[in-house]
Amino acid sequence: MMRVFEKMGRTLHLGFLLALSLVLILNVAHGGKTSTFVRKVEKTVDMPFDSDVFAVPPGYNAPQQVHITQGDLEGKALIVSWVTVDEPGSSEVHYWSEHSKEKKKADGKVVTYRFFNYTSGFIHHTTIRQLKHNTKYHYEIGIGNTTRQFWFITPPEVGPDVPYTFGLIGDLGQSYDSNKTLTHYETNPKNGQTVLFVGDLSYADNYPNHDNNRWDSWGRFVERSVAYQPWIWTAGNHELDFAPEIGETKPFKPYTRRYPVPYKASGSTQPFWYSIKRASAYIIVLSSYSAYGKYTPQYKWLEQELPKVNRTETPWLIVLVHSPWYNSYNYHFLEGETMRVMFEPWFVKYKVDVVFAGHVHAYERSERVSNIAYNVVNGICTPVKDQSAPVYITIGDGGNLEGLATNMTYPQPEYSAFREASFGHATFDIKNRTHAHYGWHRNQDGDAVQADSLWFFNRFWHPVDDSTTPVSH
Amino acid sequence: MMRVFEKMGRTLHLGFLLALSLVLILNVAHGGKTSTFVRKVEKTVDMPFDSDVFAVPPGYNAPQQVHITQGDLEGKALIVSWVTVDEPGSSEVHYWSEHSKEKKKADGKVVTYRFFNYTSGFIHHTTIRQLKHNTKYHYEIGIGNTTRQFWFITPPEVGPDVPYTFGLIGDLGQSYDSNKTLTHYETNPKNGQTVLFVGDLSYADNYPNHDNNRWDSWGRFVERSVAYQPWIWTAGNHELDFAPEIGETKPFKPYTRRYPVPYKASGSTQPFWYSIKRASAYIIVLSSYSAYGKYTPQYKWLEQELPKVNRTETPWLIVLVHSPWYNSYNYHFLEGETMRVMFEPWFVKYKVDVVFAGHVHAYERSERVSNIAYNVVNGICTPVKDQSAPVYITIGDGGNLEGLATNMTYPQPEYSAFREASFGHATFDIKNRTHAHYGWHRNQDGDAVQADSLWFFNRFWHPVDDSTTPVSH
Repeated sequence: MMRVFEKMGRTLHLGFLLALSLVLILNVAHGGKTSTFVRKVEKTVDMPFDSDVFAVPPGYNAPQQVHITQGDLEGKALIVSWVTVDEPGSSEVHYWSEHSKEKKKADGKVVTYRFFNYTSGFIHHTTIRQLKHNTKYHYEIGIGNTTRQFWFITPPEVGPDVPYTFGLIGDLGQSYDSNKTLTHYETNPKNGQTVLFVGDLSYADNYPNHDNNRWDSWGRFVERSVAYQPWIWTAGNHELDFAPEIGETKPFKPYTRRYPVPYKASGSTQPFWYSIKRASAYIIVLSSYSAYGKYTPQYKWLEQELPKVNRTETPWLIVLVHSPWYNSYNYHFLEGETMRVMFEPWFVKYKVDVVFAGHVHAYERSERVSNIAYNVVNGICTPVKDQSAPVYITIGDGGNLEGLATNMTYPQPEYSAFREASFGHATFDIKNRTHAHYGWHRNQDGDAVQADSLWFFNRFWHPVDDSTTPVSH
Repeated sequence: MMRVFEKMGRTLHLGFLLALSLVLILNVAHGGKTSTFVRKVEKTVDMPFDSDVFAVPPGYNAPQQVHITQGDLEGKALIVSWVTVDEPGSSEVHYWSEHSKEKKKADGKVVTYRFFNYTSGFIHHTTIRQLKHNTKYHYEIGIGNTTRQFWFITPPEVGPDVPYTFGLIGDLGQSYDSNKTLTHYETNPKNGQTVLFVGDLSYADNYPNHDNNRWDSWGRFVERSVAYQPWIWTAGNHELDFAPEIGETKPFKPYTRRYPVPYKASGSTQPFWYSIKRASAYIIVLSSYSAYGKYTPQYKWLEQELPKVNRTETPWLIVLVHSPWYNSYNYHFLEGETMRVMFEPWFVKYKVDVVFAGHVHAYERSERVSNIAYNVVNGICTPVKDQSAPVYITIGDGGNLEGLATNMTYPQPEYSAFREASFGHATFDIKNRTHAHYGWHRNQDGDAVQADSLWFFNRFWHPVDDSTTPVSH
C-alpha cells in the first residue's frame, strides 16, 4: 500500500519557513505503518521574547496571559485566569451572554509566588458559575484599570448524543514550530471547541534557573486560543519544576499557581488527577508524576472514579496522561510501563475509548491492544488485540524547542498502528454515542488534510473493530 | 530433602498461648521451599489500651513514646523523640558518655497536629550531634518536670570490615503477636544493634477515624526497644492515613509528625526516601507510596544516590521498601510490579546485596533473580538467576491485627527460595566485607532457632553464588 501526498509548505505569520521535502510514503512494516514523510530536520528554537506573539498588552496593569478552563464537573462553570503586573488590581470578571446583555460579576483571588530569583506577577483566578449551556458569553477583566474583553461558548448540556469536537495538543512549548501548531489548530476547519492538552506547557525549565519569565511568555503566546476556549490541563514532566540545586523542591509550583483545574469537583484531593464531563465525553486526567501505587490518593481516586462513569450519560470515556503506555520510539521508551502495569487492567475492564498522551515529540497511534495477563511466572507478556482496550495516541508533537523524536524502534511493533515524526495536532470529533471521527494534522499540510484519520467506534455502544490496519494472512 | 524441628510453644509474659502444631516440614516444590509448619491460625487481635505494654509512665508531664533514630548520614547524630501530654515542657536532651560523665545539652522543637477529632500531645524532636563512635551514652529527657533516663550505643565508625548486626521487623502493629515478635527480637542472642523497620507501624488507620490514640499506644509499646537502639523507618501503606471521607487528605500526616528521619543529610527532599551509612552498610530507604516515575523527586534522588555508594567504604548495600517486588503470596500479589519495572535495572547494575520489604504478612526469601530484559515486544519476562541481583526478603510478619497471609501461589515460583506463613523477625549480621549471616526467627521457636538462615556473600567483594537451593537436574 502506498499513498503520496504533496503539499507546499506554508509561510506562517512569523515568517519562518521550514524547509521540507514533501513526499509522504506510508510503508507497511512489521506492525502498522511507519510514515516516511521526509523533511530536513532543523533545530527547533524558541521564539525570542520580543516576538509579536509574546507582546504585552498595552495599558496600565492590563490583564495578560488570559486563559480559561472548565470550572466544575459538568461544564456550567469556568475558571478565568490572568496576570497583572503593575499592581494586583481587581479579580472581578464581568460577563454577559450574547442574548441578555445583562452584566454579571464574579470575584476571585489573586496569588503570587517566588521561584528562585523570580517573582511572579499577580495571578488572578476567578470562577464563573451557573452558566447556561450552549451559550456565547463575553467577559471583561482588568476592571478599574485597563480592561480587556474576550468571549467563550459554553458546552451543550451533558448527554449521550451531543456532538462535540475536541482539539488535542501536547508538548507545545514556545518555538516557531509551536506557533505553527497553534495556528494550524486555530485554522483547522474542524473547529475544535475545547483543547485537551496532554502536558508540557512552557518548557521554562529548559532555561537557566527555570526562567519563569518563559512561563509568562507562554501564557501570552497561547492566549489567542485559550482566552476563548477552555484548555483541559494535564501535568507533564516539564511542569515539575523540581530544582533542588536552587532550593526549589516543591514539585509543580509554577504550574499549580498558574493553571488551576476543578479537581475537587470530581472528588480528587490534588490538581494532578481529576475528571470532567463535557458534552458526551467523560475525561479523566491522570498524573504520570504523582504517586499511583496501590493505596495512594491517585490510585484510590481512580479506583472509585471509573465505576462512576455512566456511559448512558457520557458514552465517550477519554483518558489524558502525559507519559504514553504504548510507545515505539526510542525516546522515553518504556517510561510508561510503571503506570501501565498498575492501571491497564482497569482501562480494559471499564472500556476506555481512547488514551491521549504526550511526552514523545512525535505522533503515534496504537491498535486496540492490552497486555494484562502477565503474572511474573506465566511468560504471557506480549500485547494482544483486545476490543475492550483503548486506542493509545501519542500526540506530543506540539513543536517545542527540544525538537522531534525521529528515532524509532524497528521492526515496528504489532501494537503500533501508525507513527510519524512530524509536528502537529489532532481533533476528536464526536458525532453521537457510537461514532467519533479522529484526525491527525501535521503542520506541513493544509488545514483540511488529515495525515492520519479513522472512525472511532464507541466501546460501550458500538464495540466493533475500528482498526485501520489491513488483516494480514 | 526433609528436616524436622521440634520446639515447645512459649508462654510469653502476656500469657497468650498460641496453639501450635510443632512439626516443620520443608518440602521441595516447583521453585524453592514452602514450609508446611502447621499451626492453628487464630484471629490476631490488638492488645487493649489498658495492657501493661501501653502503660503511661507516672509523673507530671513524663516523657512517653520515647524513640531514637539515626540523625545524620554517618551515625554521629541521633534524633531523640518523645511525647509529653500535660504541657509542652522542655525539648532539651541531657546526655553523657559512660566514660566522661560530663553532661551535654541539646535542644529541639515541639510539634503538635490534629487529625479529624484527635489532637496530639506535644511531640518533641531533638537532634544530638557530634557523638563519638562506638560509645555508650546515657540521656535524660523531661527536664523540668518528670525526667526519664535511657541509653544508647553509637555505631562504630563507618568502614568496610566493621561487624554490625541489624534486626529486621516489619508490619508490627500492636497485637499480642506483635508483642511476641518484639520480645523475641529483644531476647535474640544475636543482639541486634539497630532495627531496619520496613514499614507499617501502628495500624491506627484500621480504627474508626484512624484513631490516633493507637499511634500513641504503639509509641509506648515499642519504647522498650526503640528508646535504646535506633529504628530506621520506612513508610508503609498504613502510614498514609489518607482519609478524605473525614477531611484528612494530606498523606503521611501522623507519621511525619511523629517519626522524623535524617533525609536532608542524603540530599533527599522528602522524608519518604533517604539513605544512611551505618558501620559497613549503606542503607537506602524507598517509598512505595510516593511518586517514582522518571523525573520525579524520588527517581532523581535515587538516580544520583546509587552511584555515590562507595563499596570500599560501605560494602553492604541494603534497600528497604515496603511493598515487595518478588512475592509469591496471593496477598498483595503484583503490587510491587509498578516500582520493580522502574528501578530493578538499577538494583542489578549497582549490585544491591539485599532488599528487605514488608507488606505481606508472612515470610519469604527469593533467589538472586532479575527480570530486566523485557521490552514489551520480546516476550522475555521471566525472572532469571542473576548473581548481580539482590536477594529479596519479605519480612512483613511482625504480627499486626490483620493476621497472617497464608494463601500462596502454586506451584512455588522459581524465584522464591523459601516461604512460610509465620510471624517473626530476622537479623542481618555483617561479619566483614565479604560475609554476613542472615537468619529468620519465627515467634514459635526458641531464641536461638533460625527457621531460615544463610550466609550472604557480598556482591561487590565476593560475588559468589550464595543460594541455598540445591541445583536441580
